[in-house]
Amino acid sequence: MRAARLHGYNQSLVLEDIPVPGIEANEVLVKVGAAGMCRTDVQLIDGYFRPYVESTFPLTLGHEISGQIEKIGSLVPRSAGFEEGDQVVVVGGWGDESCRHCHDGNTQICPHGKWPGFGPHGGYAEYVPVPAQYLIKVDKRFKLRAEELAPLTDAGLTPYRGIKKLRDAGALGPDRVLAVFGVGGLGSYAIQYAKLLGGGATVVAFARNPEKLASAKDLGADHVIDTKGKSIDDIRKELSTATGKSEIDAVIDCAGAEEMIRMGFGLLSVGAHYSSVCLVCDRINIPLFPFVAREYTYHGSFWGNYNDLSEVVSLVQQGKIRHAVKTIRFEEINENLDLLRTGDVIGRAVVKY
Amino acid sequence: MRAARLHGYNQSLVLEDIPVPGIEANEVLVKVGAAGMCRTDVQLIDGYFRPYVESTFPLTLGHEISGQIEKIGSLVPRSAGFEEGDQVVVVGGWGDESCRHCHDGNTQICPHGKWPGFGPHGGYAEYVPVPAQYLIKVDKRFKLRAEELAPLTDAGLTPYRGIKKLRDAGALGPDRVLAVFGVGGLGSYAIQYAKLLGGGATVVAFARNPEKLASAKDLGADHVIDTKGKSIDDIRKELSTATGKSEIDAVIDCAGAEEMIRMGFGLLSVGAHYSSVCLVCDRINIPLFPFVAREYTYHGSFWGNYNDLSEVVSLVQQGKIRHAVKTIRFEEINENLDLLRTGDVIGRAVVKY
Amino acid sequence: MRAARLHGYNQSLVLEDIPVPGIEANEVLVKVGAAGMCRTDVQLIDGYFRPYVESTFPLTLGHEISGQIEKIGSLVPRSAGFEEGDQVVVVGGWGDESCRHCHDGNTQICPHGKWPGFGPHGGYAEYVPVPAQYLIKVDKRFKLRAEELAPLTDAGLTPYRGIKKLRDAGALGPDRVLAVFGVGGLGSYAIQYAKLLGGGATVVAFARNPEKLASAKDLGADHVIDTKGKSIDDIRKELSTATGKSEIDAVIDCAGAEEMIRMGFGLLSVGAHYSSVCLVCDRINIPLFPFVAREYTYHGSFWGNYNDLSEVVSLVQQGKIRHAVKTIRFEEINENLDLLRTGDVIGRAVVKY
Amino acid sequence: MRAARLHGYNQSLVLEDIPVPGIEANEVLVKVGAAGMCRTDVQLIDGYFRPYVESTFPLTLGHEISGQIEKIGSLVPRSAGFEEGDQVVVVGGWGDESCRHCHDGNTQICPHGKWPGFGPHGGYAEYVPVPAQYLIKVDKRFKLRAEELAPLTDAGLTPYRGIKKLRDAGALGPDRVLAVFGVGGLGSYAIQYAKLLGGGATVVAFARNPEKLASAKDLGADHVIDTKGKSIDDIRKELSTATGKSEIDAVIDCAGAEEMIRMGFGLLSVGAHYSSVCLVCDRINIPLFPFVAREYTYHGSFWGNYNDLSEVVSLVQQGKIRHAVKTIRFEEINENLDLLRTGDVIGRAVVKY
Repeated sequence: MRAARLHGYNQSLVLEDIPVPGIEANEVLVKVGAAGMCRTDVQLIDGYFRPYVESTFPLTLGHEISGQIEKIGSLVPRSAGFEEGDQVVVVGGWGDESCRHCHDGNTQICPHGKWPGFGPHGGYAEYVPVPAQYLIKVDKRFKLRAEELAPLTDAGLTPYRGIKKLRDAGALGPDRVLAVFGVGGLGSYAIQYAKLLGGGATVVAFARNPEKLASAKDLGADHVIDTKGKSIDDIRKELSTATGKSEIDAVIDCAGAEEMIRMGFGLLSVGAHYSSVCLVCDRINIPLFPFVAREYTYHGSFWGNYNDLSEVVSLVQQGKIRHAVKTIRFEEINENLDLLRTGDVIGRAVVKY
Repeated sequence: MRAARLHGYNQSLVLEDIPVPGIEANEVLVKVGAAGMCRTDVQLIDGYFRPYVESTFPLTLGHEISGQIEKIGSLVPRSAGFEEGDQVVVVGGWGDESCRHCHDGNTQICPHGKWPGFGPHGGYAEYVPVPAQYLIKVDKRFKLRAEELAPLTDAGLTPYRGIKKLRDAGALGPDRVLAVFGVGGLGSYAIQYAKLLGGGATVVAFARNPEKLASAKDLGADHVIDTKGKSIDDIRKELSTATGKSEIDAVIDCAGAEEMIRMGFGLLSVGAHYSSVCLVCDRINIPLFPFVAREYTYHGSFWGNYNDLSEVVSLVQQGKIRHAVKTIRFEEINENLDLLRTGDVIGRAVVKY
Repeated sequence: MRAARLHGYNQSLVLEDIPVPGIEANEVLVKVGAAGMCRTDVQLIDGYFRPYVESTFPLTLGHEISGQIEKIGSLVPRSAGFEEGDQVVVVGGWGDESCRHCHDGNTQICPHGKWPGFGPHGGYAEYVPVPAQYLIKVDKRFKLRAEELAPLTDAGLTPYRGIKKLRDAGALGPDRVLAVFGVGGLGSYAIQYAKLLGGGATVVAFARNPEKLASAKDLGADHVIDTKGKSIDDIRKELSTATGKSEIDAVIDCAGAEEMIRMGFGLLSVGAHYSSVCLVCDRINIPLFPFVAREYTYHGSFWGNYNDLSEVVSLVQQGKIRHAVKTIRFEEINENLDLLRTGDVIGRAVVKY
Repeated sequence: MRAARLHGYNQSLVLEDIPVPGIEANEVLVKVGAAGMCRTDVQLIDGYFRPYVESTFPLTLGHEISGQIEKIGSLVPRSAGFEEGDQVVVVGGWGDESCRHCHDGNTQICPHGKWPGFGPHGGYAEYVPVPAQYLIKVDKRFKLRAEELAPLTDAGLTPYRGIKKLRDAGALGPDRVLAVFGVGGLGSYAIQYAKLLGGGATVVAFARNPEKLASAKDLGADHVIDTKGKSIDDIRKELSTATGKSEIDAVIDCAGAEEMIRMGFGLLSVGAHYSSVCLVCDRINIPLFPFVAREYTYHGSFWGNYNDLSEVVSLVQQGKIRHAVKTIRFEEINENLDLLRTGDVIGRAVVKY
């Protein structure tokens, strides 16, 4: 099969032919239909994660995977209802099921976790083996395309979990202002979830790019604010004109820049909640006094688990989510990694097989 | 001022002229704009509540009140921002602020509570004194009509709290089926909240009246099921055809008939939640084995508190709620109580001043 | 190996010699150290569960299992840290990991679940194969005895989960009265958890047997009430004398008799929570009016999951739990089933190998 | 009456004779029995809060108040059950009951709030007027002394709320390590609550003063760690030896130094919770990557509300809390403020009348 593999840090992927991997008895072989391309791929190539985990090469990248079932291992329970040909998406955070987090369903934060594309075979290849409990079946009746499904497993999943944390903490509702910071790959989904889960919250998108702000409006944001060159006071005034309130009750931060975090905390209302889902960034540096005296809550939220992704798939099956996907060919992977590195991708690039 | 007062159980209200009541220093005098008529009024007249509380006569009924501020007591804090002429709605469950429930904001379940129209002056009169902390200001920019606002304080509030309990318990989401039982005064609101708070849940309305079921569809129910003469198995099949699932994950019960409760629990999925908001009914009589072995949770939910009503008002201000209100004149109160007694009112009757 | 197997409903178990079962690649073979005997065993033999699931024979009973690791399947992750000779307890509710409940960690309510001793090999035998994710390692440093550990997996687990539901719902705290109904196998643990998780709640045990009430006191109950022949009013007075309050804020019901449920709901305070963990019983038959108007919440709670059992084991390792265990020999199993059937067992009978 | 009043920033309090203040109709006059002295008093005098709120002088300080009821306003509801001579404590955060936080019971974070001793009459005087809803009656049967009660209203309340936030977020339980940072006025209570609310959590106190660490042990900490001059790695090792785990699952931070926050976040386990209750400190400066990727949650927690204080009083009535109180005479107030400024007070200084 074709596979795009990394043979060492700071190299291009090698597009080569390798044998189709075998599966263990508790696994399913998935014929990859599409694989989303994520900025994390670039970070992995560039050695960003080396302080945390050392990779072994060669490595097949690609952690946003949809496809169909090719073969089912002998220990996969019949009752799970899998059949060859089923359309599936892959939950990417695999745990070893021996820790508290795994047994809460949060396998993506298992301290002994593995993730396809970061060690185990990833989706930049024609086939990938997946432990059965990390596959979610997509209902064929909805005739969803593989390239729509693949990015759901990370770009579409990560902000969903982040917003659920806000909702479950009681931060959302009809009298609240919910801000979405950043309108890129994750933020575009975030705006839509903000409307679906907000229970009537007023959704305000914050970004520095007029094109992205226009797209935010189009995706359902009630208001948009261009933060470029503006002080906190400027933004307060703009907020107040738009929403009748000069403070924000909840933030889903898909940008994660240090100064944006500081600005965000400077705009919070008493009792507000802030949810960070972005990994690219550096430090949190904010004053403690208002954090305590105004009872803020700050949530780190990482990727998503099986049930989170199930819910996202359910929203998509109901036709409630709009996508901004650009399909590329397998041969274009390296070229697109370069575009991701420079931030020049509009929408989510997805390798289509 | 004109007032419709009850002088004894099982009598018609006497429409009479009485002095405008004075206010205490911590109260506000509200000029009533509209007062919703509720089946509970009939129950009070008919003596239904006598086992729980003995009324003293004469008694001005009416607990669904909107109006405008006429006069403000000297101890009402300036910072609350009330001014004469402000449009307001009245939170009906008043506590004595000495118990845990009051201090959680749930004054409607205070064991020492009082409710306008059940003791203190009610809304079937031109003026009513209200402790300042039970008034919610309505933003004038939205030019809402008094008769739209009044029923929000009970019919529009009660199912909102009931559905919030389901959401806060984690019972709602895109992969869940949420049933609304009953499509009357409360159920009509419930369907709309189910869509707004369900986070993508599939909403199915259950009733026995084709006209009401049509209205449920119109208000946004994804599916409707006519339960008349049907067995649980019949309904399971209908559910399955409509939603792809033969069980219900959450119920908001605005009907409350004993047999409907039994049917409801017979349709629940594992881990399901059931929320009862209806007071008219009699007994809960359901099997224990599935309740335990399938981990059901059953929530009693009563009326609503200040924050619940604030949120409802916010939804209405955003134009997200449709009303089915029929205004009547003060002189028609007794006639309409008779209609309520026989169940012949379509939509909510509201006395307009 | 020796095994006590059921060859048909309403029969004695046959104590026979059968081959040691093999394991799948994702399983671990456990050498059974002790197996707790539960009234559910009798119910299974007597056909109580036939309406829900039909058994196939022969069947090795026993779902409360502790032991040590004999052999580890090839697919069990190294990172799980299992080694031959490790002391372990078995989580009894096994899911197929394809449903929402499994992915929330609640495998014990998986609709496709299987339970050792109810289909898969149980603990009334010398060896039992267990999927690796259902094993919890016990720290050897604490030198716990197999017979102390086995009953934790059901009798010691079930009330723990029931009380956690109360705590997580906000029902416990220093100003609350927490009642434990029933002081048998489960109730004896419940009293201890009530003190550990109650956050200062006053714990009152209710039973009809003076000997059991004495034991409740001994296990830490602040007060005990003998319900035999008493009216609700009698009990209210007794409560009031003992605790200063005539109502109960939370109930963990380990008895589950229909009349006790009715009495319990008759004693609840406004906003109270009731948690039922008992399966033996029949119907819930209570009035709806107070359930709604006083905002009760009723929780069904079933057995427990991996994390629940982990926490119980942790309490035991800290020496915080007292046991009432009576070990019996393998040959005495049938005799003890008869005692269980008539309710004549004091403490938990455990088969020791 | 005698009162110690501030006539301008950076001055000593003037001990003078002023008229007993009158009460409004919704207020109660409290004869002060004791008033706790808090470092916040010094901060107020020194102008620390000027950037947030400008004081008007003269100002009677003292926000930790216990006493007995002298006189009851005419609008105080009878059902609240107050009588002259009742022993009471004062909830210090007073809201205007027009915002969402007030109606959730969190009057201490009301944006229009007032606090006795920071504007309204404080407790460094013989009488203080208090709105009735901010008084909690203490049961006379327990014969608690005024000087034990006064510090509960802040030093004893603040860490209680902070730990409740941890518990309600699911951060505590038998398999968790709960760290208490700082063993001063607040930390001494925190250790006791950690044991009472921890549900079996292992409690580890962190401080830099051997005397305080000894007292931590005495108050029930399972382990203590002297952080003085130690690296994170040193502490990890010490933690591991003491608890078997090298990470912390939850922190209640009663110290609030910037470097201690950084150290704290450096020790957290995956999914951990951190609760800050200390106002004296400066900035939060921590890395974002682990915050997101390991899903930390950071809670700001401020003072406490009516129900929090009710629960604390209930624990004290049950005899479950130990105090470290040093009573001083009214004439010694200024002298003790100086000691507070230099940090030389051991235990809580309380002015006794």
